[in-house]
Amino acid sequence: MSDLHALFNPRSVAVIGASSKPGKIGYSIVENLKESGYTGKIYPVNPNATEILGYPCFPSVKDIGQPVDEAIITVPAKLVLNAARECGEAGVKFLVVITAGFKEIGGEGVQREQELVNICRQYNMRMVGPNVVGITDTNTPLNASFAPGAPLQGKIAFISQSGAMLIAILDWSRSAGIGFSQFVSMGNKADLNEVDFIWCAAQDPNTSVILCYLEDVTDGDRFLEVATEASKIKPVIILKSGTSKAGARAASSHTGALAGSDLAYETAFKQCGVIRANTMSELFDLAVAFINQPVPKNSRVAIVTNSGGPGIIATDSVERYDLKMSRFNEQSKEYFKQNLPAESSFYNPVDLLGDASHERYRLAMETILADENTDTALILLSPTAVIDPLKTAEIIVEMRKKYPDKPVFTSFMGGERISEGNKLLSESGIPCYTFPEPALQAISGMVKYSKLREKVMNAKPLAPAADVDKEAVRKVFAEVVKDGRTALLGYETTKVAEAYKIPVAPVYLAKSPDEAVELANKLGYPVVLKIASPEILHKSDVGGVKVGLETAQEVKEAYQAIMDSVSKALPDAPIYGIEVQKMMPKGTEILIGMIKDAQFGPMIAFGMGGIYVNLLKDASFRLAKCMTREDIEEMMTETKAYTLLKGYRGSEPADLPSIVDAIARVTQLSLDFAEIAEIDLNPVVAYPDGAAALDVKITLNGEAK
Amino acid sequence: MSDLHALFNPRSVAVIGASSKPGKIGYSIVENLKESGYTGKIYPVNPNATEILGYPCFPSVKDIGQPVDEAIITVPAKLVLNAARECGEAGVKFLVVITAGFKEIGGEGVQREQELVNICRQYNMRMVGPNVVGITDTNTPLNASFAPGAPLQGKIAFISQSGAMLIAILDWSRSAGIGFSQFVSMGNKADLNEVDFIWCAAQDPNTSVILCYLEDVTDGDRFLEVATEASKIKPVIILKSGTSKAGARAASSHTGALAGSDLAYETAFKQCGVIRANTMSELFDLAVAFINQPVPKNSRVAIVTNSGGPGIIATDSVERYDLKMSRFNEQSKEYFKQNLPAESSFYNPVDLLGDASHERYRLAMETILADENTDTALILLSPTAVIDPLKTAEIIVEMRKKYPDKPVFTSFMGGERISEGNKLLSESGIPCYTFPEPALQAISGMVKYSKLREKVMNAKPLAPAADVDKEAVRKVFAEVVKDGRTALLGYETTKVAEAYKIPVAPVYLAKSPDEAVELANKLGYPVVLKIASPEILHKSDVGGVKVGLETAQEVKEAYQAIMDSVSKALPDAPIYGIEVQKMMPKGTEILIGMIKDAQFGPMIAFGMGGIYVNLLKDASFRLAKCMTREDIEEMMTETKAYTLLKGYRGSEPADLPSIVDAIARVTQLSLDFAEIAEIDLNPVVAYPDGAAALDVKITLNGEAK
Repeated sequence: MSDLHALFNPRSVAVIGASSKPGKIGYSIVENLKESGYTGKIYPVNPNATEILGYPCFPSVKDIGQPVDEAIITVPAKLVLNAARECGEAGVKFLVVITAGFKEIGGEGVQREQELVNICRQYNMRMVGPNVVGITDTNTPLNASFAPGAPLQGKIAFISQSGAMLIAILDWSRSAGIGFSQFVSMGNKADLNEVDFIWCAAQDPNTSVILCYLEDVTDGDRFLEVATEASKIKPVIILKSGTSKAGARAASSHTGALAGSDLAYETAFKQCGVIRANTMSELFDLAVAFINQPVPKNSRVAIVTNSGGPGIIATDSVERYDLKMSRFNEQSKEYFKQNLPAESSFYNPVDLLGDASHERYRLAMETILADENTDTALILLSPTAVIDPLKTAEIIVEMRKKYPDKPVFTSFMGGERISEGNKLLSESGIPCYTFPEPALQAISGMVKYSKLREKVMNAKPLAPAADVDKEAVRKVFAEVVKDGRTALLGYETTKVAEAYKIPVAPVYLAKSPDEAVELANKLGYPVVLKIASPEILHKSDVGGVKVGLETAQEVKEAYQAIMDSVSKALPDAPIYGIEVQKMMPKGTEILIGMIKDAQFGPMIAFGMGGIYVNLLKDASFRLAKCMTREDIEEMMTETKAYTLLKGYRGSEPADLPSIVDAIARVTQLSLDFAEIAEIDLNPVVAYPDGAAALDVKITLNGEAK
Repeated sequence: MSDLHALFNPRSVAVIGASSKPGKIGYSIVENLKESGYTGKIYPVNPNATEILGYPCFPSVKDIGQPVDEAIITVPAKLVLNAARECGEAGVKFLVVITAGFKEIGGEGVQREQELVNICRQYNMRMVGPNVVGITDTNTPLNASFAPGAPLQGKIAFISQSGAMLIAILDWSRSAGIGFSQFVSMGNKADLNEVDFIWCAAQDPNTSVILCYLEDVTDGDRFLEVATEASKIKPVIILKSGTSKAGARAASSHTGALAGSDLAYETAFKQCGVIRANTMSELFDLAVAFINQPVPKNSRVAIVTNSGGPGIIATDSVERYDLKMSRFNEQSKEYFKQNLPAESSFYNPVDLLGDASHERYRLAMETILADENTDTALILLSPTAVIDPLKTAEIIVEMRKKYPDKPVFTSFMGGERISEGNKLLSESGIPCYTFPEPALQAISGMVKYSKLREKVMNAKPLAPAADVDKEAVRKVFAEVVKDGRTALLGYETTKVAEAYKIPVAPVYLAKSPDEAVELANKLGYPVVLKIASPEILHKSDVGGVKVGLETAQEVKEAYQAIMDSVSKALPDAPIYGIEVQKMMPKGTEILIGMIKDAQFGPMIAFGMGGIYVNLLKDASFRLAKCMTREDIEEMMTETKAYTLLKGYRGSEPADLPSIVDAIARVTQLSLDFAEIAEIDLNPVVAYPDGAAALDVKITLNGEAK
């Protein structure tokens, strides 16, 4: 990972295209640098000026004659390449290319961007952009951007793929009183991208929470790695917009039809420990929750209120957001009975009644925070005639300090009458929300992070099984490719499955009736015979399938009947022979599958199998690259198939370890062979002892014939 | 429906318990009445004062000697009954009982409340409360409440079951600039309840949208009726908190296990045309959307933006909230090509680029609003250096007037730099949201209302089938009750189903082997025999079931075998005989069921049937009381079962009209017999021609044995 410390803490900054005209971007940048209180050297560069905002101006970056750590480029697009080259020659380490007119305009812009990247490589420079608003670090302090004004100082690093959004959030955050440590506009991400900035913010001691607005991820593999490591250090919260284009081809498989277009990101975030925000307000509600608060130990929330309605609404939200209501210990309940009015609710939510004063809040908060069954406290307040919101806020601040391990959230509902109280809470780092629901959504996000983080910290990657035969698989794939196909035939998938010890009801190819009988004898009766031809998809329609064959004689006759029927129906179809498969007893039908995401690689699917797969849509997914044994077990429990496997309505439980092992082996196969595009094992029949895939489909990359 | 006009527009108001001490509720009420500019007579009543806030004070309401339309009672709980009685004697028409200490405190409070209701009945008075903050009408104007200050004038009627919430919302709404027509605290709802206030607000010409915060509904039947009628007139938006206790008993049935605790309210709201808000902010976001805007004709949204990121976020939300992106006509696209910069997006969302001025917004708005493919416009703005948010707002206001049929929503993202623009938009009745997502959620709520309203306007109640035999059903139920049971036996459910022409594979009772053979001959083979005893639940476990009987001889032998086996296993169980049923061919298995909600009566269920019902949880519900044929069709299409019935993977479509008819008949049966607690038809096997319920369970009200 490249060290971006000097990008946010340069000793000197040159502004290429600095201007002395207010309103010009080249002016705004110099002005922002100056006004931010940046203590390093500022070098405006403009051949037509001698001085800008009090700084001597240079005709070229090469004329500065002093080391330049960073250059902000604002010259017109056509002049950028030359400016970058001069920066390289002058030994500049970082470029921030504000100028637009690159990849985003297509055509010549694409080429110009490539050349710009080449120049950076040549001179060993790293680049932000092009097409950015700039970067800001409020602690350096450095405001190298043309955004109007600077963000307030705070502990949030905000990394945005949209420059206009950055400008909007900047303006909004100042009104909302939200501060930032770093403010990064990534633009076209031609060189540095989210991975670099997330990692930099993870290392930054002034940042306690990382927020990203992303429209895509540049490099899936690096993202998985860096997001995982960053999440171990501090919360990473991402708003990802736009729908992924992945899986367009994959929709031909059962597994593909189950995967939504956004699934890969959803799965990646979960496996990396990243919290996903679904809306702009959720992004910032979550950020505010994380800034100054400890992460809750568990999901139990204690609620204190002075009115019933908001208490009920909050309780509803506890359920909605997968949280739990604390159940107070006997001591707490007894204390409440002794000290609160008889009509109060001593249970959770604690209703202090409409005549409650701030002192009653103190009593309740002290009790619930001391109670070991409280992980998080939520304090609700309606501005009744008797309550003093400011004094109540003071008590909340005091209690928060007294119980530093427990996060405290507040919702003071109202306007003018609660504004002073809210102000004190905000300033004291206690999150306050206008209504109760977003508070619980934010608590839920924190609990989710706490659980994901623990999982990520303890994750052990899946150990690959040693007893697999890669060579055998390679041989099968080579034959398929040689044959000009992408889809494997049944007997070929059997070879692959057997090589990876994936449990399968084997399909063997017979080239004569006698061979079919021999295979049937070996497999055991009853058997099914199917025509083997790459060009026959609907085998039954042409008389290409015979099931329930009980004897050698029946097999012999069926072989001939299939051949006759198929050659009559499709005289030109190439016939490879006839496949023989043992008919397996009934059991629980599940699906194990794999589809490929363009960004994050193979995704493994598990769920209910059989002919109703696409109707029932019971499937859970994980990325193969981050797969752990815990992931496999967790993805199984997320499905209805798992309920069946555990033994449903009195049926015997299935052999769960053999299913876990099968999923692990499909994962390994997917990772070992990048040429596999899709895998469908459907159905896999799970038995009390073992399992067997009855139908295995494997497709390789490339255009289907 | 009682006329509450005089409640909100009284000619005179007495305040029983008026006080001259600031800080007292009895003082606040007189003060609020005075300050609200109320033009009727105000009569403070207090035996210990002669004048309060300039009004002459009376020792008793009976001493006023002038007609009193309305009395606000604030005396202590113990004195309320007497005060109410005096009001009755003085000819008061409406009471608003502020005083608490009634049902909500339990014990004596419950009795006191009942007596208070009796007094109201006796004197023909209607009552708000007890235990309320009061009522406000900003147009009368009348502020008969002790809430601090009055709401701003506006077009929202807010009806709240929580007084503290009302106070909180009052304070918040003044800061948020949201105004109200009526503000109602319902308290304990001992007399007047949500139904009365919703109807009153529906009639009120100054109200354009009705908001409710409800914790329960007092009278389900009246609610269904009034909410439906009110929704035809103007939008009714309800935030319902707390989970219903309904269905606790019903969880013994398949249908019951499918119904969530909140389902009855969800279903009732949908069938009445009520919009349900899930959070406090959604409640007010929706209200603001409805106040001044026309309802969109359809769900197509056109988006204009000056930055890509927010445009993508808005597009994502269009999908999330079940809206559609407008596809502009050729003329619009051509116009954009001619008039916008080449790099703009001419498609939806229309991206005007970061250098867009307000004039570019005018051009885009004019085009998309004129386009017949736009139902609603959403205008996004990021505060770039070149945009003038105020001028853009002016153009939006102008365009909104020019195209009065199309609602316009805005999201100006930012703080100080967009505040003037936002202010103008708010004042002009154009909803503006900080972030794009809530705008689309509000648009979605409007579209939903528009569709629900159309449905409700055209709804024709289900015509009861004439060919049913109520008497036969009555007879069966009488026998069951006489037998001390609540659950019907198989042959009894057959009689009920046949009486209502619900398609069933009939179960008949044989009392001898010969009778069984006779029945089997009549039904056709193969048949199944099952022991008939109210005390044997697990029939197979005691050898009480024989399936696949193909001949008379087999039936005879099976009869004896069952009797022998059962009498050995359970010698004391009462045996009513043996049930004979024809074994039916396979088909698509569905479920039709009914459970009873405590508030709203019978709820009809439809979904996938068979043994996996509780696993698959594929079910849709409707209230029987509001059921229309369209409801039945709609509830069917909401399920996966419907996909199967239409013909899945090449199977022949099932006889859909016969399923619709079966659901209609189960609905009719449920409404005709209030004594039915639950019905489970599972499975009903649907065939290409007709259908047959294989297993029918009917349970009557009462304690199960």
